[in-house]
Amino acid sequence: MIEVNIIGTGNVAWHLAKAFASENQIIIMQISGRNPEVLKSFSKFAQETVSLDQLSPAQVNIIAVGDDSIPAVIEALPFSDALVVHTSGFTKLDVYSKEYKSTKRNRLGVFYPLQSFSKEDQDIHFSEIPILIEAQDLKDLKTLRILAEGISTQVKSISSEQRRSLHLAAVFANNFTNHLFTIAQDLCRDSDVPFSYLHALIMKTAAKAILHNPSKIQTGPAIRGDSHVLTTQEHKLSNPEHKEIYRTITKALKTYYGKKL
Amino acid sequence: MIEVNIIGTGNVAWHLAKAFASENQIIIMQISGRNPEVLKSFSKFAQETVSLDQLSPAQVNIIAVGDDSIPAVIEALPFSDALVVHTSGFTKLDVYSKEYKSTKRNRLGVFYPLQSFSKEDQDIHFSEIPILIEAQDLKDLKTLRILAEGISTQVKSISSEQRRSLHLAAVFANNFTNHLFTIAQDLCRDSDVPFSYLHALIMKTAAKAILHNPSKIQTGPAIRGDSHVLTTQEHKLSNPEHKEIYRTITKALKTYYGKKL
Repeated sequence: MIEVNIIGTGNVAWHLAKAFASENQIIIMQISGRNPEVLKSFSKFAQETVSLDQLSPAQVNIIAVGDDSIPAVIEALPFSDALVVHTSGFTKLDVYSKEYKSTKRNRLGVFYPLQSFSKEDQDIHFSEIPILIEAQDLKDLKTLRILAEGISTQVKSISSEQRRSLHLAAVFANNFTNHLFTIAQDLCRDSDVPFSYLHALIMKTAAKAILHNPSKIQTGPAIRGDSHVLTTQEHKLSNPEHKEIYRTITKALKTYYGKKL
Repeated sequence: MIEVNIIGTGNVAWHLAKAFASENQIIIMQISGRNPEVLKSFSKFAQETVSLDQLSPAQVNIIAVGDDSIPAVIEALPFSDALVVHTSGFTKLDVYSKEYKSTKRNRLGVFYPLQSFSKEDQDIHFSEIPILIEAQDLKDLKTLRILAEGISTQVKSISSEQRRSLHLAAVFANNFTNHLFTIAQDLCRDSDVPFSYLHALIMKTAAKAILHNPSKIQTGPAIRGDSHVLTTQEHKLSNPEHKEIYRTITKALKTYYGKKL
């Protein structure tokens, strides 16, 4: 049985609370957030919802807030000598311990679920989501592993540096990719073609990247060196940002595959 | 019952031949290609494999070759008055009919399966792949529809201009996206993190883009305006092409969502 607190009421907090609440071996003692209205919507998951200064230490205290706010929240915790973890892919363990000036010291760790969380998405299956953990103390790492394995089958211990690389890779694989889908959708709309015509291609693109090495299955006019198609397509794009992305990735593809030949 | 010929022995030809061959209502009469060795591997799909000058006209004659070669192949066909279609998303119906100088005229059309085909991919389910058709003649369009509906549930008639837009959208949604997955994989490898940690995120990214409007679910440091994360991540990228892609898409995200706010 592991008792946890959650500090924060954003998307990560919501999906973690939901996943923990559905596990018998995990009990959410308190959830804390600044906005009383939002906090109320979390009450079904926890024994109690409280303001930060009313928080009692649990076995694991999870800070699920934006990167910028992590140090301030740690400073403001009304207890010491407890295990306190953040959920960020970017923020390092040592970076925030350096900034940790308070005399009320807690033991620090990381509990990073690698997924893009949005409120719209009620269909999150935590079992498939990798949870990357880190802690200053070996005993704490063990506690985090037990907690993470309560909701996921993909629990790994990695360093802050590795986590930061993985987070950057996720920016390419998720944030940037999603914007390319948005551009594709805009191009379809501008020509009165349903975006749904691209659905099978989009799913196949993701499935193939997982099944094969994506660099081995690259196709398209850039790596074929089809300059007529490239020139015509670039010309066809009227939005200057779309044009610049087209130009930049085309150039990168030529360099990447040119070097390999 | 529809009788077809296939001219070309690339990936599109291969997957079309395989799909047609598994349908009772479609008969592949002849498959034609330049390379006798490659052509031999197609013999299981067709009644006969022949060189281009031995080709007899079928009800539908499908030219599955690169954009550059389409006009020359049409010129070289040893028959006239038959329905001849190409499989390209880019090449227009009128563009290649303008270039069509031969006196042996055939009736032209388009049979464009919207998918990224590679030989590695034995697991293509044509039923989910949209086939976009076009023809100069209404009767020919009907024939193409019957042929396409023999292998796909997603058959649509669209104009050359729409098809060209869709093809460009597919370059963003497939070619460019796949390169972002390659970069993500390279970043993982450089930090000794398995690329498999990103698999669930990649599948979720695609699934969410289909389920929701991708512009409504965009996340990440660029749209949050988190300049500390943005500066640190850009600095972390050592490959100049990766850095340029990071900068370009980040700028585009700021513009896209800034304008909307």
